[in-house]
Amino acid sequence: MGARELGLPAKTPAEGFPDRVTIWEVGPRDGLQNEKEIVPVEVKLEFLDRLADAGLTTLEATSFVHPKWVPQLADAEQLLEGLKQRDGVRYPVLVPNERGLDRAFAAGVKHIAIFASATETFAQRNLNSTLDTQFGMFEPVVSRATEGDIEVRGYLSMCFGDPWEGPVPASQVVAAGKRLLDMGCSQLSLGDTIGVATAGQVEAVLGGFTAAGVPMSALAVHFHDTYGQALANTLVALRCGVSTVDSSAGGLGGCPYAESATGNLATEDLVWTLDGLGIEHGADLDKLVETSAWMAGKLGRPSASRVVNALAR
Amino acid sequence: MGARELGLPAKTPAEGFPDRVTIWEVGPRDGLQNEKEIVPVEVKLEFLDRLADAGLTTLEATSFVHPKWVPQLADAEQLLEGLKQRDGVRYPVLVPNERGLDRAFAAGVKHIAIFASATETFAQRNLNSTLDTQFGMFEPVVSRATEGDIEVRGYLSMCFGDPWEGPVPASQVVAAGKRLLDMGCSQLSLGDTIGVATAGQVEAVLGGFTAAGVPMSALAVHFHDTYGQALANTLVALRCGVSTVDSSAGGLGGCPYAESATGNLATEDLVWTLDGLGIEHGADLDKLVETSAWMAGKLGRPSASRVVNALAR
Repeated sequence: MGARELGLPAKTPAEGFPDRVTIWEVGPRDGLQNEKEIVPVEVKLEFLDRLADAGLTTLEATSFVHPKWVPQLADAEQLLEGLKQRDGVRYPVLVPNERGLDRAFAAGVKHIAIFASATETFAQRNLNSTLDTQFGMFEPVVSRATEGDIEVRGYLSMCFGDPWEGPVPASQVVAAGKRLLDMGCSQLSLGDTIGVATAGQVEAVLGGFTAAGVPMSALAVHFHDTYGQALANTLVALRCGVSTVDSSAGGLGGCPYAESATGNLATEDLVWTLDGLGIEHGADLDKLVETSAWMAGKLGRPSASRVVNALAR
Repeated sequence: MGARELGLPAKTPAEGFPDRVTIWEVGPRDGLQNEKEIVPVEVKLEFLDRLADAGLTTLEATSFVHPKWVPQLADAEQLLEGLKQRDGVRYPVLVPNERGLDRAFAAGVKHIAIFASATETFAQRNLNSTLDTQFGMFEPVVSRATEGDIEVRGYLSMCFGDPWEGPVPASQVVAAGKRLLDMGCSQLSLGDTIGVATAGQVEAVLGGFTAAGVPMSALAVHFHDTYGQALANTLVALRCGVSTVDSSAGGLGGCPYAESATGNLATEDLVWTLDGLGIEHGADLDKLVETSAWMAGKLGRPSASRVVNALAR
C-alpha cells in the first residue's frame, strides 16, 4: 500500500467542478441483483453496515421487484427489518409499481426509486409496456408516494444507447426525463445501461436538460463500465455541473437484460478521482476498499474496481 | 456483439478536442516486457503484424535494454530481422544508453525512445543514477541518434506521483521534460508510471508546459490504469490539445519496479472514446479486438481491456 501511505493522489483541484459530490451507492441493489448466487441476508446487512461505516450517506438497499423477476432480492422485507438505519443515511428502495409501493409503505421506507426506460424497445422488453403506458403506470406510484412523504428518484435507463435501437437521441431522453420530473420525482438518474456513451453524448444530453430548464442539481448520472468509459463520462458530467453520481462498491453489478453490460462505475475509483480533485464526498477510501475486498471474498471472485485491486494487496 | 453491430457508440463530437489523434501503441514493448513468461518471437511478430493490419501506424516494437534486466525482450535483434515493416508504419525501439544505440544503428532502426525519470528516487532505483547524471548519459545518445537520422522520443516517467516521493510538483516535471526536448527529442511522452494521476494534476502539468513555451504537439501522454484513471486522464489531456496518446492493445503491461502498477490504457478502450467523439485515428476496432483476444489466449488470461471483454464474447 505504498502509494496510499504516501497520501496519493495529490489534491490538485481543477476548475469547473462542484465542491461537493453526493455518492449514490447502488451496490447492495443494482450490484447484488445481478449475482447468480443469492447472497445471504446477513451478508447483505453487513455490507450495508460497512458501507455506512465508510461514510456513504445514500445506500440503495434493495428492491420490491417481484421475487419471480429478481430472486436475488426476494428478502427485501427481511433485510429492511434487520437493517440498523443510521442517522444521516438514506436507504432508498427500488419500487417497480403500485404493488411495490404498498410494500414500501408497509416497510416504512422513506425514499424510493422507480425505473423507467428512455426507449420504446427497452420499455417493451424490460417492462412489457410502451413508453406511454410506462409513464401512466408510474404516475399513481409517484403521486401516492409523495403524498405519503416518500421521496422519489426516477431512474431513466438507456439514455445514450439501446441494444436494439442504437444511439438514443438526446431530445428523446430529455422528453422522457421531463415527464418523470414533472410527475414529482425529486431527482432523475440518467443511466447508460449498456455502457456505450462517450463524452460528446454526455454533454449533449446534459445540455439538452439545461436548455429545457432542468437544473443540474436535479440530475444524477449512472454509468456502466462495459466499454471502460464510466469514469471518463462521470468526469465530463461533473464538469457540466452534475453533483450526484451513482456508483457501486467494488464495481458490482450489471444489467440482466443486456448480455454485455458489466459492472457499474466502482465507488472506489470514483473516490480516487474526487480525492485527487479535492471534491468533498465524506467517504473513507480505506474502509471502502476493505469492504469491497471482503465482499469479493464472499462472492468468490476479484473485485472489478482497479483501486480495490491495487490497494487491497 | 449486439452493440457493435448497431454501430455504437454514436459519433457525437464535443468541442475542444483535436480532429485527429495518433495512437502510439506500446503493447509489444511496454506490454510484453512485463510478462512473466517470455513470449516466443514468432508470437511477437504475429502480434506486430496484426496490429499494423488493424491500422495502427506507430508500433513500439521492442527494447535494447540489456537482456539481464529485461529477458522478455532479449530477442530484439531477431525480432527486427523477422519484422515485415510496412510503409507508413513506424517501429520505434526503446534504447537505454549508448550501447543500446549502437544496437539500434546496427539493426537499421529509424526511431528510438529513451526512458528518463522526473524524480531523483526513480532515477536512482531504475537507472542507478541521479537526475543530472541521467541527462548527461542521454545527451550523447540523442545527439548521435539525430545526427544519424534517427528520430528520438523521450519518455519521462513518474510525472504525477512517485512511489517513494509522493506527488511530483508540476514545475519539476516541466524542467525535466524541457531538458529532454532541448537535447533534441522530437516528442516527450509524459508517463503516469504508477497510475495515480487525476484530472487536476494532468491540467497542471500540461499547463506548465504551455507556460514554458512547449506546444501540445510536442507532447504525448502515457497513463496506466492502476487506479482506473487512465481513460479519464487521457480525455482531459485531449481537451488540453494533446494529440498523441500511448496505449497498449488489450491493456497489456505495467511497471516492473512499482508493485501495484497494472496495465497501460487499453488501445481498444481509447478507440471507443475516439470513435464516439468522431476523432480520426485510422485503427479498426474489430481487428484490434480480435488481435487482443488472440493475444489473451496466448498469455492464458483475460484481456484487461473492457472493450475486448465486451466485444470478444
